[in-house]
Amino acid sequence: MVKKPWGGRFEGPTDALVEAFTSSIEGDRHIAIDDVEGSLAHARMLQDVGVISTADGEKIAGGLRTIRREIETGTFAWNLALEDVHMNIERRLAALVGDDVAGRLHTARSRNDQVALDVRLFLRRRLRDIVEKLVALEHALIEKAHANIDVIMPGYTHMQRAQPVRLAHHLLAYREMFARDRSRVTDAMKRALVSPLGSGALAGTPHPIDRERVASLLGLGGVTANSMDSVADRDALLEVLSVSAISMIHLSRLSEEIVLFASAEFGFIEIEDAFTTGSSMMPQKKNPDVAELVRGKCGRVVGDLVSLLVTMKGLPMTYNRDMQEDKPPLYDSLDTWAGCLEVTSRMIPAVRFREDRLSNALREGFVTATELADHLVTRGVPFRDAHEVVGRIVGHCVAAKKTLDDLDLEALRRFHPDFGEDALEWIDVQRAVDRRDLIGGPNRARVAAAIDAARQDLEAAFAAGWLTTT
Amino acid sequence: MVKKPWGGRFEGPTDALVEAFTSSIEGDRHIAIDDVEGSLAHARMLQDVGVISTADGEKIAGGLRTIRREIETGTFAWNLALEDVHMNIERRLAALVGDDVAGRLHTARSRNDQVALDVRLFLRRRLRDIVEKLVALEHALIEKAHANIDVIMPGYTHMQRAQPVRLAHHLLAYREMFARDRSRVTDAMKRALVSPLGSGALAGTPHPIDRERVASLLGLGGVTANSMDSVADRDALLEVLSVSAISMIHLSRLSEEIVLFASAEFGFIEIEDAFTTGSSMMPQKKNPDVAELVRGKCGRVVGDLVSLLVTMKGLPMTYNRDMQEDKPPLYDSLDTWAGCLEVTSRMIPAVRFREDRLSNALREGFVTATELADHLVTRGVPFRDAHEVVGRIVGHCVAAKKTLDDLDLEALRRFHPDFGEDALEWIDVQRAVDRRDLIGGPNRARVAAAIDAARQDLEAAFAAGWLTTT
Amino acid sequence: MVKKPWGGRFEGPTDALVEAFTSSIEGDRHIAIDDVEGSLAHARMLQDVGVISTADGEKIAGGLRTIRREIETGTFAWNLALEDVHMNIERRLAALVGDDVAGRLHTARSRNDQVALDVRLFLRRRLRDIVEKLVALEHALIEKAHANIDVIMPGYTHMQRAQPVRLAHHLLAYREMFARDRSRVTDAMKRALVSPLGSGALAGTPHPIDRERVASLLGLGGVTANSMDSVADRDALLEVLSVSAISMIHLSRLSEEIVLFASAEFGFIEIEDAFTTGSSMMPQKKNPDVAELVRGKCGRVVGDLVSLLVTMKGLPMTYNRDMQEDKPPLYDSLDTWAGCLEVTSRMIPAVRFREDRLSNALREGFVTATELADHLVTRGVPFRDAHEVVGRIVGHCVAAKKTLDDLDLEALRRFHPDFGEDALEWIDVQRAVDRRDLIGGPNRARVAAAIDAARQDLEAAFAAGWLTTT
Amino acid sequence: MVKKPWGGRFEGPTDALVEAFTSSIEGDRHIAIDDVEGSLAHARMLQDVGVISTADGEKIAGGLRTIRREIETGTFAWNLALEDVHMNIERRLAALVGDDVAGRLHTARSRNDQVALDVRLFLRRRLRDIVEKLVALEHALIEKAHANIDVIMPGYTHMQRAQPVRLAHHLLAYREMFARDRSRVTDAMKRALVSPLGSGALAGTPHPIDRERVASLLGLGGVTANSMDSVADRDALLEVLSVSAISMIHLSRLSEEIVLFASAEFGFIEIEDAFTTGSSMMPQKKNPDVAELVRGKCGRVVGDLVSLLVTMKGLPMTYNRDMQEDKPPLYDSLDTWAGCLEVTSRMIPAVRFREDRLSNALREGFVTATELADHLVTRGVPFRDAHEVVGRIVGHCVAAKKTLDDLDLEALRRFHPDFGEDALEWIDVQRAVDRRDLIGGPNRARVAAAIDAARQDLEAAFAAGWLTTT
Repeated sequence: MVKKPWGGRFEGPTDALVEAFTSSIEGDRHIAIDDVEGSLAHARMLQDVGVISTADGEKIAGGLRTIRREIETGTFAWNLALEDVHMNIERRLAALVGDDVAGRLHTARSRNDQVALDVRLFLRRRLRDIVEKLVALEHALIEKAHANIDVIMPGYTHMQRAQPVRLAHHLLAYREMFARDRSRVTDAMKRALVSPLGSGALAGTPHPIDRERVASLLGLGGVTANSMDSVADRDALLEVLSVSAISMIHLSRLSEEIVLFASAEFGFIEIEDAFTTGSSMMPQKKNPDVAELVRGKCGRVVGDLVSLLVTMKGLPMTYNRDMQEDKPPLYDSLDTWAGCLEVTSRMIPAVRFREDRLSNALREGFVTATELADHLVTRGVPFRDAHEVVGRIVGHCVAAKKTLDDLDLEALRRFHPDFGEDALEWIDVQRAVDRRDLIGGPNRARVAAAIDAARQDLEAAFAAGWLTTT
Repeated sequence: MVKKPWGGRFEGPTDALVEAFTSSIEGDRHIAIDDVEGSLAHARMLQDVGVISTADGEKIAGGLRTIRREIETGTFAWNLALEDVHMNIERRLAALVGDDVAGRLHTARSRNDQVALDVRLFLRRRLRDIVEKLVALEHALIEKAHANIDVIMPGYTHMQRAQPVRLAHHLLAYREMFARDRSRVTDAMKRALVSPLGSGALAGTPHPIDRERVASLLGLGGVTANSMDSVADRDALLEVLSVSAISMIHLSRLSEEIVLFASAEFGFIEIEDAFTTGSSMMPQKKNPDVAELVRGKCGRVVGDLVSLLVTMKGLPMTYNRDMQEDKPPLYDSLDTWAGCLEVTSRMIPAVRFREDRLSNALREGFVTATELADHLVTRGVPFRDAHEVVGRIVGHCVAAKKTLDDLDLEALRRFHPDFGEDALEWIDVQRAVDRRDLIGGPNRARVAAAIDAARQDLEAAFAAGWLTTT
Repeated sequence: MVKKPWGGRFEGPTDALVEAFTSSIEGDRHIAIDDVEGSLAHARMLQDVGVISTADGEKIAGGLRTIRREIETGTFAWNLALEDVHMNIERRLAALVGDDVAGRLHTARSRNDQVALDVRLFLRRRLRDIVEKLVALEHALIEKAHANIDVIMPGYTHMQRAQPVRLAHHLLAYREMFARDRSRVTDAMKRALVSPLGSGALAGTPHPIDRERVASLLGLGGVTANSMDSVADRDALLEVLSVSAISMIHLSRLSEEIVLFASAEFGFIEIEDAFTTGSSMMPQKKNPDVAELVRGKCGRVVGDLVSLLVTMKGLPMTYNRDMQEDKPPLYDSLDTWAGCLEVTSRMIPAVRFREDRLSNALREGFVTATELADHLVTRGVPFRDAHEVVGRIVGHCVAAKKTLDDLDLEALRRFHPDFGEDALEWIDVQRAVDRRDLIGGPNRARVAAAIDAARQDLEAAFAAGWLTTT
Repeated sequence: MVKKPWGGRFEGPTDALVEAFTSSIEGDRHIAIDDVEGSLAHARMLQDVGVISTADGEKIAGGLRTIRREIETGTFAWNLALEDVHMNIERRLAALVGDDVAGRLHTARSRNDQVALDVRLFLRRRLRDIVEKLVALEHALIEKAHANIDVIMPGYTHMQRAQPVRLAHHLLAYREMFARDRSRVTDAMKRALVSPLGSGALAGTPHPIDRERVASLLGLGGVTANSMDSVADRDALLEVLSVSAISMIHLSRLSEEIVLFASAEFGFIEIEDAFTTGSSMMPQKKNPDVAELVRGKCGRVVGDLVSLLVTMKGLPMTYNRDMQEDKPPLYDSLDTWAGCLEVTSRMIPAVRFREDRLSNALREGFVTATELADHLVTRGVPFRDAHEVVGRIVGHCVAAKKTLDDLDLEALRRFHPDFGEDALEWIDVQRAVDRRDLIGGPNRARVAAAIDAARQDLEAAFAAGWLTTT
């Protein structure tokens, strides 16, 4: 049995089942590399303020760099019997630089503030990656919009054809959602990226350390303001889990539409074989599995958020062991979110929109009925009356199995005498779309401008180093 | 690249990222053994009805038994490139008995009904284990109650000392909760343990199979009534996830009390070293980590339930790939629940109740104030008045830093003249407890009877083969 | 200010904000009638065992019956200043029969066990109604199935046309779900319908009451076994909230299909005007609002479940005021669930299936591709090979814009020489469906038998008084 | 029956049950005032750009101002038969200024963008109030900290006494949490406070309106960038629900401690009678009901968040009627959150900390054991060894029922010879606390500085008009 670092007042050994039950080592390998980064900064600060000697500081730094390399290359030998990731690294360091020197690394540091720092470094590392993936998805949507700027399709409300829009406009609506997600990540990081190191177990440390030096070495924006809050707080995780849940809702909506549009009934898209799968039983099947799975995984990420909210509810100050359960939902959420973002951004270019089907849907859908009412309004008819007149026209067409295109001016005037000579022009979808010439509207020039603005936003994010939005 | 079982109409290969993203093989090893069981029954039925020859049936059965042994002994060679667990087993069978014979196993069966069956067999296997663990925990509580039947403690409402109860009565309250959990498991299984096999992908099969024969071979209670529902339905999982969430709420409450009682302030219990851990920083700490972790893991299991509810929401008929996400929360939930039950039932015997502290708490807590009011009621004072009188007595004691025991009859009568000669007997905690002589009350004989009844319930469950409650 | 029933040891009055904050009277009117029922039984028992006199018992009963009538007719004058529903009833009773007599009703009863009983009576009353509504919905589905037994439609997996099924079979799949919900309600009630009265605040009562008599008067199945558990337990609510969440998932799936089928793209159904709404802007719109709202309200009911799980997590024994928050989600959940069941069961008869559109979808959907593969299997071709051959046939048709019906035998044999003379018969959808002649399959006689069995199940439920299923 | 604004193509009337089921009027009175504000700005803009005449614009504005007054004074006559709040206001306006003029208000506006705007105005209004309440709570904590800056108490981890801290430091840890909540509110509002008006039903409007003029009139930061996203998006609500859930977690933790500290066992606080309640049965009870209820209501707010996440999952573009279910959880969440903040900030000054009990807890708790180890470290003993030595000392004291204060230097040196002359000074709690002289530490000067900084932060927030944090 491995010796515990806290054995002094204990007489009996820990139950083997308890050891397995309380172990966090499987999941926490996610933060091993961040633990090493944090230790490097802590050691350097201890050396700078003279708490440890330069010689010891350099030995420790050398050992930690060796460990970092071992972790990165997958050669680090994890020992599951050693409680957690930190103990594994600690023992390896002792093996590399000797027990005495390695022991000094733990001066003025508790497991509580150490892990609190590790998680913040982990969040920064992973959320940089998430931001890049959000940008990649935004990019895919923008470019797909650009390539389809002249394609018109029915816009839907209540899953009923409503009014014609540009496909590009529809795609850019999703890009807005993911841009907001990115903005939320940035805000969450602004709060998260401060250093809790120096908070000790809960009450700080009597050693003359320099907390701000550690923060600066790690590129963090400052230090936390209260040692008890620093070890009791899991806000950064809750906030990131919230942001990821909202973003997965967006992905679930996009996926729902991909599944719908890939159905035989809609038939609006074709997905490349590489992004679909078949059936082992039904030879004709070509299933949009990727979109279905992304939609399904939304549940997982919402569950992860709920998981941590429940765990944190009602916990008294400061650290409680319950909080070890904070990281599994975080790992799961970020892995799932990143995977869904990546596979979706890869799939978007593999989706081909079928203009023939979109065009058919427009013709059959009475999507310009509102235009006809608007036309009457321009001729002085109150909107409520115009709406009713056109409602009756649509009712007539449905009964007679006609589309609006099948009507001539005379037919229209049988429903209301004020239809003008240009009435039929109003039901042209292209004109209907371009008539909506306002900020955020589907008019061609407006959409082209929106594409430009979106591209510039991504460039600005790139220039700022990703974790910032305009 | 491995050949797909559905490649006919596909021209391009599957994207490698998509393969990784859609793979379920990691988690689904949980059901590998159940998959083999299901296949053994299916093969036997096909042979019985003459769809496959006796020779082929026996070869298949032999191959499957080999695979079962390999899985059980951990020697099965999983190939992560092979999409899922079923394909792994299929290929291994082909290697063992030849492609042609192995292929016949898939007659009249789709992946959809195959997996639906596997999950039900998995649930039966795992929930039998859960029931055993619930019983073990109930047993631990009952025996701890038995050993402490003469210990009196304060019962609490609002975390304020309220009335005296037997510790055994308090422990048996928890046993009631876990017995209800067991009852819920049994009911859920009653609905779950029917065979969906024969439902095909969604519409059954044209082959002349015998669905009830398969159910009977597997010891299931019957067959599902509708092939589309059979592959679309995830009720059994949702119900089990609900039951586990409720049970974890119970465990969280028990754990909360263990943590509270282990605090210096309560000091009601001592936990053996084997079930506590220390601090790497603070030498005096002895933390009730196990109870804290169990309490924290409640969040995880609630999150698992939410996860599947969200995933299933709004899915149209019948199978959608989203539903592949049904099993990760199920595995996580059952593993967590089983682990928490086991560690808690192991910890209960390691908890020692400190009678000195319980006794102090009784003396200081005014827990027999209600008795004093009840005494006045027996002397003809209306309860509301009696309540007010005793309220004033308590107020007096608090101000004077006295306990009720410090008052004599004369003192009482200064608050109300109707206090009888035996008034002081009413505030004796032992008598107060035993005066509550009714079904479900803390009176000694009643608690002894409750212990007997509980023991008999466990014996009946054992005799019935666990998955049944009285 | 109204006098508090617990004022004795208190010096200052309650803060007005605190009074408003802690009041439960708005929501708890839901259980007012149940509170009166419980009090009637309690009073009768007190009278029977001689704790109160016959004269007092009869006065109390008379007063309570008056109050019941006032509540039922809406003439009861609620006083919001009186903390809660129970205090309102108590004061009204005092006004009717005098303070002294009214006060005796509270002998041997605490607010804790009183409310615990009220909620169980409320659950019984409301769940009887829910069961009737489930039955009404099942009935609507069964009769719609009966009326459409000869209509064939495509069955779907992955929202892709998969295999032909009977519309009736599809509808009966939903009936299975709601029948399971009914079964779950029954099981939950089995556990819930026992009387907690006599548990007092937590420790029972010293009065010589007859708990079983109360249970029997109220038609409950027995009494709870532990007084502390009785006031600490909220399992019945959690279980009902779980069952309602699962049922709402079913309703969300049915609603999703109604929305899908009502889209122009599917066009499978027409909903009567009475169950749709229009748009104030777009004259052509006819929106399936009811189905959308039912789908949306699924979120609410899942939220209600989570709400109570979070509230109960980690609460120590026994009653804590947090638990006052148990009832708002319960009321909301049951109201929502009942409303959704009712409106859906009313809408089903208002849905007309369009056979022309279903028939078109069948023709274009390659839904009998699996049949063709099965045909080859009957001619000795291994299934995997047959699957691949038919996959290539489908690919050919898609490219050539043909359906399977457009191919003749010769065309088929160009893909594989073993196609038999009767190959073309296999792709007839009617035959394909009827070939699936097995329990739970879509064959006509099997579906007719399923309709009969379902009708008998409802009749049995009716005969048993609803709250029981076969 | 009231005439529908969309009746044109409909033949049958709406089912009465459907009318009730789809009505939102009860809840939506929350946004009635915001609806009027939005209409005032819209009307003004229409007038400014010449879409309606000045005369009409002024009549409309006059009518709306009358309606606003009626709503504010509670004299507005709501008609439940009129579908929703907007229709109520519309009809009232028609009654005030005539049908024709009133009708012009709806030019270039759909219900979809109208409601989207209303909700954003509602959020601004309510979140300003929330921010004020957060500030009030922070203020209460800061002033309670200031008043208790010299009180030392045990800090806890694992609910075990760990190290001494200042009570003020403990209180300020909570202030940090609520300051972060405030920061999150501000960030959410930054994204939310842009105008969606002009987005129409989904595709904008052909009328020559000025979207930015409306935004400017309403004091919003700009306009949304995509009309489809504007009506499909519910991010602002989801984000606010997330923020409120996190904040309620903080309140649940603070409440848990109030409940704990008010227990007889801790006895750290006394709450004024005005903020506690008693028991109708047990005369001695004084329950911390307010804190319990706040803790319990955390569940409700988490449930509200889950509710909307589930509702939004998988919805296709753009508006779907499901989204009417977005507002009930929002109203409930904000009402609950605001109520809990207010009652808690009012209760904090009513909490008196008992220094005698805190001081006792310090003496018995071995809370300076770490100091003793740190002392040995200053004498050259490696920390791990020092930790073990002190662990043994603690074990000795526990067995001998002593505190650290009971030991003299000689006793210490029996465990390790290197204890220095000043060893006993290290276990003085006052010195131990002040030795932690670092940013965020419990040292007196540091805490005083933290109080000053916190006060300045609140002043800055006040100066900035609340909805901004430093």
